[in-house]
Amino acid sequence: MKKIAVDAMGGDNAPQAIIEGVNQALAEFPDIEIQLYGDEAKIRPYLQANERVTIVHTDEKINSDDEPAKAVRKKKQASMILGAQAVKDGKADAVLSAGNTGALLAAGLFVVGRIKNIDRPGLMSTLPTVNGQGFDMLDLGANAENTARHLYQYAILGSFYAQNVRGIAQPRIGLLNNGTESTKGDSLRKEAFELLSADQSLHFIGNVEARDLMNGVADVVVADGFTGNAVLKAIEGTALGIMGQLKTSIKKGGVRAKLGALLLKNSLYDLKDNLDYSGAGGAVLFGLKAPVVKCHGSSDAKSVYYTIKQIRTMLETDVVGQLVGEFSKKGD
Amino acid sequence: MKKIAVDAMGGDNAPQAIIEGVNQALAEFPDIEIQLYGDEAKIRPYLQANERVTIVHTDEKINSDDEPAKAVRKKKQASMILGAQAVKDGKADAVLSAGNTGALLAAGLFVVGRIKNIDRPGLMSTLPTVNGQGFDMLDLGANAENTARHLYQYAILGSFYAQNVRGIAQPRIGLLNNGTESTKGDSLRKEAFELLSADQSLHFIGNVEARDLMNGVADVVVADGFTGNAVLKAIEGTALGIMGQLKTSIKKGGVRAKLGALLLKNSLYDLKDNLDYSGAGGAVLFGLKAPVVKCHGSSDAKSVYYTIKQIRTMLETDVVGQLVGEFSKKGD
Repeated sequence: MKKIAVDAMGGDNAPQAIIEGVNQALAEFPDIEIQLYGDEAKIRPYLQANERVTIVHTDEKINSDDEPAKAVRKKKQASMILGAQAVKDGKADAVLSAGNTGALLAAGLFVVGRIKNIDRPGLMSTLPTVNGQGFDMLDLGANAENTARHLYQYAILGSFYAQNVRGIAQPRIGLLNNGTESTKGDSLRKEAFELLSADQSLHFIGNVEARDLMNGVADVVVADGFTGNAVLKAIEGTALGIMGQLKTSIKKGGVRAKLGALLLKNSLYDLKDNLDYSGAGGAVLFGLKAPVVKCHGSSDAKSVYYTIKQIRTMLETDVVGQLVGEFSKKGD
Repeated sequence: MKKIAVDAMGGDNAPQAIIEGVNQALAEFPDIEIQLYGDEAKIRPYLQANERVTIVHTDEKINSDDEPAKAVRKKKQASMILGAQAVKDGKADAVLSAGNTGALLAAGLFVVGRIKNIDRPGLMSTLPTVNGQGFDMLDLGANAENTARHLYQYAILGSFYAQNVRGIAQPRIGLLNNGTESTKGDSLRKEAFELLSADQSLHFIGNVEARDLMNGVADVVVADGFTGNAVLKAIEGTALGIMGQLKTSIKKGGVRAKLGALLLKNSLYDLKDNLDYSGAGGAVLFGLKAPVVKCHGSSDAKSVYYTIKQIRTMLETDVVGQLVGEFSKKGD
């Protein structure tokens, strides 16, 4: 039985969306057990399942505007922290939250803890490509500064994830850089390029540019947290901006355009679905002793369901256990 | 008379698109004079104007795959280099090219030269926002590494440009960062934040995130060249990816979707125009003693025309002359 701790109170649509996602996951997967942390009176009305699920009541929760490190230190009884604590205590195998990202990162680092010999866990998501295959990128912003060694570790993490969770036999790893030639970039990129090239166990394909990510140029893209965060937000902002502009443009276009949009409805939904990519699950704080996974704050029940599915696959394949083994060989 | 040197041989559609753009600009603006550098036999067939235009013949040109620094050093008679040299010699007031970006950056730095007290010129473009106003971002990749002092100088450069060329009285300057709070970012960002806050002549609005750029959160966005380059390419790649997916989705949607797309044609063109934003002109290598402006390699006649228009405004307002004055006060 895979035991998953769920912060029932995190995110814009909590607890309803969280519990509805949990209902779906429990119905679908007979090998999971869910521990719900949060306000029992608010959780109970939405909960359908009555087996393989427990509620651990708490009044406290971390808000989206709480200062992360402080919240983790002071709010010991918050739903998110209790979930992380359950993992540390061996009562749960993984934790999921749609709440405050910074607080979850802090809880992951300070409560769940790092895998030995991993210096700086990174935040990783599967992002959309036009061919529907997607790519994993990390670090997306868990760190403001990274060294070449961190980037090298991200390549190993991402490669194990792509193999185990996404079923890609030999994931192509790209280093995000300002050009594709091997001599490109600043000293950080040049040093990371050397480290990646030297490890024959990795299928390193060289430098990749942000322009080509959506075309599926690599299966795993490694970046420092500052650049990764900026690129992720640029992709999100551009996608939202274009979809918004398209809507405005259709509105301005009068009856003719509206009729056109109606006929195009399915194609436009297709496009939206492709960009959404919530089917791949949430963002993993990767490099910790157990899966710590962040759902988007605006997640609906479906996103929560897919994130539980993702966590289940991570537990099924024991990707974290494999990484513990891999990195135990890399001690200094 | 404003004298503009034009590299007639640079870009995918040279010399035809370049010369057609020049024809339009000469017809529109009676106060400009164009010097065309390139192969006279290839230029002549497209050239309509016969006054305020001269051809300076040369057989040599820089190719898109030439190594930039080497090309500038070895190909002294290349059309691009002769154009830059004309600026240095005072025969032209500005230079335009749609050719090899790296070579133009090198020619700008080594032939035209930096404004005194500007450490590292930055590449700047006006990028689209959903409200049509646009924003200027720099550095977009002229440098792989920057200091806080460089970012501070970019804020001054961008602010002068937005005021003079785009007519924004008090441009809002944002620092690209991984969060909006003043404490965000790495040491580079924190130091830049201090420098920007301390200069009361700048309208510094604080940190901005890549997610909000398209919503017009700032008029000028400053970034180090590595991040700026990655964000620019992420925006481009996402926009192209989405437009491509929309096309694919319409094709797959059969007759119904095709009819819808036909009815939506004007709205879709609107959207494409908004994203294209070539009306704002080319990318300026800013911080040099004269306007050195890069048209996109795939520029058509219209883009070339708009870039000449942009250069004309830069010369009309003497924005570079103003910057020379501004920075002469900032000597160490």
